[in-house]
Amino acid sequence: MSLKLYYDFLSQPSRALYILLKTSKLPFEDCPVALRNGAHLNDEFKYNVSRFQKVPVIHDGDFKLTESVAILRYLSREKNLPEFWYPKDSKKQARVDEFLEWQHNNVRAFCALYFQKKWLFPIITGKEMEPKKLAGYKKRMEDCLDSMEILWLSNGKYICGDNLTAADLWAACEVEQPRLASYDPTVGRPILGAWLDRVRSELGENYRVAHEILNKIATKSQKAKM
Amino acid sequence: MSLKLYYDFLSQPSRALYILLKTSKLPFEDCPVALRNGAHLNDEFKYNVSRFQKVPVIHDGDFKLTESVAILRYLSREKNLPEFWYPKDSKKQARVDEFLEWQHNNVRAFCALYFQKKWLFPIITGKEMEPKKLAGYKKRMEDCLDSMEILWLSNGKYICGDNLTAADLWAACEVEQPRLASYDPTVGRPILGAWLDRVRSELGENYRVAHEILNKIATKSQKAKM
Repeated sequence: MSLKLYYDFLSQPSRALYILLKTSKLPFEDCPVALRNGAHLNDEFKYNVSRFQKVPVIHDGDFKLTESVAILRYLSREKNLPEFWYPKDSKKQARVDEFLEWQHNNVRAFCALYFQKKWLFPIITGKEMEPKKLAGYKKRMEDCLDSMEILWLSNGKYICGDNLTAADLWAACEVEQPRLASYDPTVGRPILGAWLDRVRSELGENYRVAHEILNKIATKSQKAKM
Repeated sequence: MSLKLYYDFLSQPSRALYILLKTSKLPFEDCPVALRNGAHLNDEFKYNVSRFQKVPVIHDGDFKLTESVAILRYLSREKNLPEFWYPKDSKKQARVDEFLEWQHNNVRAFCALYFQKKWLFPIITGKEMEPKKLAGYKKRMEDCLDSMEILWLSNGKYICGDNLTAADLWAACEVEQPRLASYDPTVGRPILGAWLDRVRSELGENYRVAHEILNKIATKSQKAKM
């Protein structure tokens, strides 16, 4: 089998690619990487897997590629990826691209930062983040989630209209992340909540498997908070 | 003329698109937007130009598109864009995509943040940013610039090998930005410096015009520092 996916289920774009490949029934060699153990930081990973020392990465034969959105586009050209994910129609494709480019410095950056500062920072340093700083991170994340509610989900059932695309899968994997830090992104955002339910339900078992560890930790965090 | 470009020369991706269109000799209607006057924040802009209230934006007939990378890809499909910018060869295209996706949360985010905190923040608030905070922003920007030097520019004359692509143009426009705040990104980075000289020289007059205001302010900032 020539296609390998290196991933970790606690990495949002890793989950997106895993679900994409599984749902599309594209065969690939499963290469989990335990980020929590620094498995991406050793020389073996650097020289044999990826010089960028991040996940996700794919190897397609001897072609190595990082950056999940670049990988999605490569797969849409090279493999038998169902067209609904990344439409061939130029204007529809531009709409998916528009969201995938927007999310980097919005839901991607700020849901991840809130999760890192609220959940990861205390684990690594043994102390809580300063409340005023944390409030700043929370505010920026909430602004992005509000943009999802007001701007991106106002045109139909999904981000790019009435059909599910890769934009929804990438967005959902990001929006799930702050749940690790006991933050429910759907509270006060009914449109986002209904959309997330639709994405979860449409992607079924593969989505559930990729989010299993996240869901376990989220439940534990929620209980600790109560 | 059906293609309109809304841009401001102090916006990095605006400069990239302007230079791309000019160098490619693609005709477009010039629609400068004075961000400094909040020209993107009024209802006229919101309803007629872009509901996202940012630049750059293109209108191609009645199709409105934001996000410079999405616009680049759209132009590569729809217009007569010279192929070197965004190669049709799948693996070469993937390499350009890989950089364009990486830059969002790296040179894009951190060169812009340093410029905003060092240069814009004092103009808006009338006071300097706290030195410790500013040092944090500087460190993150410098890590990204070091990644350019060590990782991205180690394979040839340009980011994706020996030929100029859109990756170089997008990167150069970001790397120029901290010069507004008296920071020279090429000091101590000879590979980055030689690459930036090549990009500037290859793109000649169009690059110069798009960076004219930036160069004026950078010279003034530099003099004030001395």
